[in-house]
Amino acid sequence: MKRIVILGSTGSIGESTLDIVRKFPDRFSVLGLTAATNDQKLEHQIRLFRPKVVALSSECAARQLRRRLGKHPVDILSGEQGLCAVASLPESDLVISAIVGGAGLLPTMAALRAGRAVALANKEPMVMAGELMQREAHRQGIRIFPIDSEHSAIFQSMEGHRLCDVRRIVLTASGGPFWDWTREELAHATPDQALQHPNWKMGAKITVDSATLMNKGLEVIEARWLFDMTPDRIDMVIHRESIIHSLVEYCDGSVIAQLGHPDMRTPIAYALNYPERVPLLPQPLDLGKIGTLTFSPPDFERFPCPKLAYAALEHGGALAPALNAANEVAVQAFLERGLPFLHIPTVIEDTMQSCTHRSPTSIEEALAVDRWARTHASAIAKRYLT
Amino acid sequence: MKRIVILGSTGSIGESTLDIVRKFPDRFSVLGLTAATNDQKLEHQIRLFRPKVVALSSECAARQLRRRLGKHPVDILSGEQGLCAVASLPESDLVISAIVGGAGLLPTMAALRAGRAVALANKEPMVMAGELMQREAHRQGIRIFPIDSEHSAIFQSMEGHRLCDVRRIVLTASGGPFWDWTREELAHATPDQALQHPNWKMGAKITVDSATLMNKGLEVIEARWLFDMTPDRIDMVIHRESIIHSLVEYCDGSVIAQLGHPDMRTPIAYALNYPERVPLLPQPLDLGKIGTLTFSPPDFERFPCPKLAYAALEHGGALAPALNAANEVAVQAFLERGLPFLHIPTVIEDTMQSCTHRSPTSIEEALAVDRWARTHASAIAKRYLT
Repeated sequence: MKRIVILGSTGSIGESTLDIVRKFPDRFSVLGLTAATNDQKLEHQIRLFRPKVVALSSECAARQLRRRLGKHPVDILSGEQGLCAVASLPESDLVISAIVGGAGLLPTMAALRAGRAVALANKEPMVMAGELMQREAHRQGIRIFPIDSEHSAIFQSMEGHRLCDVRRIVLTASGGPFWDWTREELAHATPDQALQHPNWKMGAKITVDSATLMNKGLEVIEARWLFDMTPDRIDMVIHRESIIHSLVEYCDGSVIAQLGHPDMRTPIAYALNYPERVPLLPQPLDLGKIGTLTFSPPDFERFPCPKLAYAALEHGGALAPALNAANEVAVQAFLERGLPFLHIPTVIEDTMQSCTHRSPTSIEEALAVDRWARTHASAIAKRYLT
Repeated sequence: MKRIVILGSTGSIGESTLDIVRKFPDRFSVLGLTAATNDQKLEHQIRLFRPKVVALSSECAARQLRRRLGKHPVDILSGEQGLCAVASLPESDLVISAIVGGAGLLPTMAALRAGRAVALANKEPMVMAGELMQREAHRQGIRIFPIDSEHSAIFQSMEGHRLCDVRRIVLTASGGPFWDWTREELAHATPDQALQHPNWKMGAKITVDSATLMNKGLEVIEARWLFDMTPDRIDMVIHRESIIHSLVEYCDGSVIAQLGHPDMRTPIAYALNYPERVPLLPQPLDLGKIGTLTFSPPDFERFPCPKLAYAALEHGGALAPALNAANEVAVQAFLERGLPFLHIPTVIEDTMQSCTHRSPTSIEEALAVDRWARTHASAIAKRYLT
């Protein structure tokens, strides 16, 4: 019986994880859950899965939850400290880190510092502080498992093969909803249009990241730290059908890939059950019926965001956390405040160019870069609001 | 330093193997070589690789070779006994079994009985006596490595994963040169046309097997024994580009596949170096440039041979070795004696239907089925010669 903690249990990945937990009650028990503000959904999850401890970021939401749950024996914590306490629970066997955006960094780091195995669904912590996280994991002798479908594919394609034989990894990208749009059309892309992902049903932030291709940029940075792979050995290819989830090329010309229908339950279940697999019974992959898989090189003219991510890795310093924060601000400004789609990269690039912070040597320093970049990016974004 | 023996060193796989050996002189030395009749090419290989022992099937060719080599210190054996002696050399670390057709069975079995690790490039021995071979390998505590590109792909896609989690394997088939031909066109297909394989440069027999799709049928039988997989869990899909070499589907919906340019050196090198890989420097697989991979279900109406292979596994008994022998006879009759292309399966099916032999319990019994089926198939083939 694996005792699991889910950071971000009310989001898309959190719910899919609980879906799997419910299917295999002999394998998993839920020890802790956290959410940002959605106390109603968390209440429902508490009644269903009976965790020992939960935490809400919002004090107000935590108070509401305490009121509604009455004498229910669950401990209800709140705030950043509460999230970190749930992440650090010493009885947990695996912490699923699925908090959207940079907010996941501190709790995920708390889990690592407590020596807990971590399965990472959110890429932002790795983007902000990948080197520091891996150093801590190494110190604790624990492994960070990827849940992101591309990184899970790479992880699965490396199992049973020697890391020293890997020549490069190739991340596949659906290209998002705007792949065949002209620059002129992109200039008028609306949030509603950006939220129509062709293959994956995901949260809003990551769906917009898919539309700008920044999602792939963040994945490059994530892969750099997850697999200790220099950026010149991380490639990407547009693959509209999202059937091949990523590939690993070895020095003898052999390429191993992981494929499947786009369904996050597969990588989640793999991380949960590793090194075993559980029968999930999704429909078999019928390539004869699918017929065609297509590939094309990414177009960094119309979609410059991945280039910014490569630049952040190349120049190092604080550019990766600055990029991440500026991207979050720009995406939110696009979704809520009328920032034109084509100015999302403008805001990020300007923030990176203005960043003079040195390479963070602690989570606190990474968070300081994050704060500075958010302020700076907000100011830049204002210039372009329509 | 691995000491290797190559059975069938003058064929396509044998030459590619020596190509790799020459590239990595620190890793491999050639202990023994065998060929059927090509004493000139074997002489060249002897001078280049300095094996300790060689054998030729043909006594006459062996005499010629002895004459030409004069005082060269190599031992030159001949006949079936000679081949088996080279296969059994106790100092060898790996025996590459690459003799075309059923002629490879006895020497390969000799290698297994001598407790030598075997890398299998020819599928016919497994088709004729897969169960017996695996039983012997098991008794000796040795492993049979596949070199056939599809089976190497499956082997590589299973490394690091649990056999008990495999749901099914999917063999990819190029479909051969006649994939889009009508039955009417197939009726007039000539040997020259059959020998134009779209992707792979191979020997004549296997190229015709690709045109009839019997190659895939033989691979189904080979996979059945290599991976201990019942036939209902072995599927096939037409994949014209031969980039995905085969796939393994796991119980959680995850599919692992091995890809690469069609180049036999990759699976050969993998078997030679397992579990390590060596840098072969083939051009990287640029999916963005390749653009499209296509898949379609096989058409067993126009290409009934695979169905015969499934039937041979389903009904068991001596049908697999009978199918294999009848196929060899039919292919040769097509290539040399004017048997119409569409009557290759007719000859095989008739032979299978007439076969009353019980399931072979020894190599000798399997060879008896082989002899009977060759005689029977030759008689049938005569009826259809044009």
